[in-house]
Amino acid sequence: MNAEKILLDHGSGGKISHNLTTDIMLPVFDNPILSGLDDGAVFDIEGKRFAFSTDTYTVDPIFFPGGNIGDLAINGTVNDVAMCGATPLYLSMGLIIEEGFLISDLKEIIKEMGSAAQKANVKVVTGDTKVVPKGAADKIFINTSGIGLIPEGIDVAICNARPKDMILLSGSMADHGITVLTKREGMSFDLSIKSDSAPLNHMVSRMFSASTDIHVLRDPTRGGVGTALNEIAEKSKIGIRIFESKIPVKDEVAGACELLGFDPLYLANEGKLLAFVEPDHAEDVLAAIREDEFGKDACIIGEVTSDAPGNVVMETRIGGTRIVDMLIFIPLIFSGGI
Amino acid sequence: MNAEKILLDHGSGGKISHNLTTDIMLPVFDNPILSGLDDGAVFDIEGKRFAFSTDTYTVDPIFFPGGNIGDLAINGTVNDVAMCGATPLYLSMGLIIEEGFLISDLKEIIKEMGSAAQKANVKVVTGDTKVVPKGAADKIFINTSGIGLIPEGIDVAICNARPKDMILLSGSMADHGITVLTKREGMSFDLSIKSDSAPLNHMVSRMFSASTDIHVLRDPTRGGVGTALNEIAEKSKIGIRIFESKIPVKDEVAGACELLGFDPLYLANEGKLLAFVEPDHAEDVLAAIREDEFGKDACIIGEVTSDAPGNVVMETRIGGTRIVDMLIFIPLIFSGGI
Repeated sequence: MNAEKILLDHGSGGKISHNLTTDIMLPVFDNPILSGLDDGAVFDIEGKRFAFSTDTYTVDPIFFPGGNIGDLAINGTVNDVAMCGATPLYLSMGLIIEEGFLISDLKEIIKEMGSAAQKANVKVVTGDTKVVPKGAADKIFINTSGIGLIPEGIDVAICNARPKDMILLSGSMADHGITVLTKREGMSFDLSIKSDSAPLNHMVSRMFSASTDIHVLRDPTRGGVGTALNEIAEKSKIGIRIFESKIPVKDEVAGACELLGFDPLYLANEGKLLAFVEPDHAEDVLAAIREDEFGKDACIIGEVTSDAPGNVVMETRIGGTRIVDMLIFIPLIFSGGI
Repeated sequence: MNAEKILLDHGSGGKISHNLTTDIMLPVFDNPILSGLDDGAVFDIEGKRFAFSTDTYTVDPIFFPGGNIGDLAINGTVNDVAMCGATPLYLSMGLIIEEGFLISDLKEIIKEMGSAAQKANVKVVTGDTKVVPKGAADKIFINTSGIGLIPEGIDVAICNARPKDMILLSGSMADHGITVLTKREGMSFDLSIKSDSAPLNHMVSRMFSASTDIHVLRDPTRGGVGTALNEIAEKSKIGIRIFESKIPVKDEVAGACELLGFDPLYLANEGKLLAFVEPDHAEDVLAAIREDEFGKDACIIGEVTSDAPGNVVMETRIGGTRIVDMLIFIPLIFSGGI
């Protein structure tokens, strides 16, 4: 690490936060489970395979079109556990609340956490609340951790992508990121722009009913689809080719991104998944995703190649190709949680 | 809730934070596992019993005599899992770091987390780092969640205390609380005052080797021994009688408490446990605790009575008795994390 101080970029989900993990955390907590760096940890206890994941939510603003920090905190961890191929079962909740926070706002957040947990069919079974003095935290931060059980025969991991795999995206890109960014800046766009915050575990179980030949699952949250694909390309040592024309982006989201100079490839999603699937089974899995209420706009957006391992290449709409790099620096407007 | 805003008292671990949980959280996350309100949740998956716990550490100052926020975050969750009678196995770690935080301080904290995990023989297997803008958090907050497996034949719970149980405390009281409070206020006392931050899981497994007739285990952290005993009395519907003369408090800690006007019964401990044990087995369990490196000063401090359920009574050194109530309001000096 060259920088002496922690920068906002260290929490971006991009290359610099990746470095923080590999340079500072991994050498200390040296174990093969952590070093996989999947969305969650996978391990065996008494012959059963479990997934375990944690995420802290510092989103600003805490209320936004389509949800609030509460449902985000439930869905995010449900999804991270589901991306390990597990059925999420139990969640913990750790709150940090700033002194003076409105109890009515807390109730609204807890209410959304409750209904999100119910929709995802998981139970919040343990919790902790800390209150810090005014000014020592920004309103409220929520950590959730989750445990799930991985059914026999399921084996997904970020390092499992194989040449010829088809790459599926379960719906339109960048909805959550653009919603939070525009709301934070007080910009008012098309009213139809809202967060895609949603649980993906029921979708995942539909997918596995269609085929167990799914090699990688990943929810492209912080850092967006662009960063997630780069991580998969690097860890699986494969090349990725995607087609710009096939990646769904809502018109109003594309418009806002263009106006503000954002690339939707790097904006956060909170209710979408990427799946790398054996080519023969891709259509079946796609059909299964589309049956789910949150997967109606799913598409095959690309494929795995054996050339240029570690690289993500996009065929653009105008027929050229460009390298999709990992997000390196975050624009200033991203500061604060997404 | 009468107050419209969150107060520091809501995070004290005392009566008001208890109310926040029972009034706002429990009605929403209505399930029998959560409503137990033990240090962690206990549930079955495929015929095995697991414990799952979460805690967020907001201690101020982050470095103090005897440890830092890092080892505290590991030991605290290891202990919460162990208090469910479980063998802690895997931990998650969620960091919230303030922009501008020194990387050298982060490294020091992570290093202590690593060695605490090693001492406790647990693995940190999944993590998350968020960076928030300068001023949006106070330096660093750490959440840890942990999973453990409960061996067959073990059944401890906060509601399991029975009349005639002997009450054991594994060592001296209030070390952590007084250390953090005096350090925060810049007071300089006896150099030997330091936090008792320590893992208790090895002690717990020694105890179960001596006897499985242990009914309740609890680590008296925030709110101290006084609050923990009140929670047990309430949940188990039993009375508790303790003897002031038998409760170990180090001379220098007692001195600092007297000078500053604190009651050590309500100050936090981070490496002590309370055990409620079948009377015939109490001496064996006490001997087992004393064999552990963190239990050398363990004592039997009281007993369970069948009169006055829900009440904790202390026989004072001068021969009187007083009611030990649950901590209601926290003194101003407590503001910020312990």
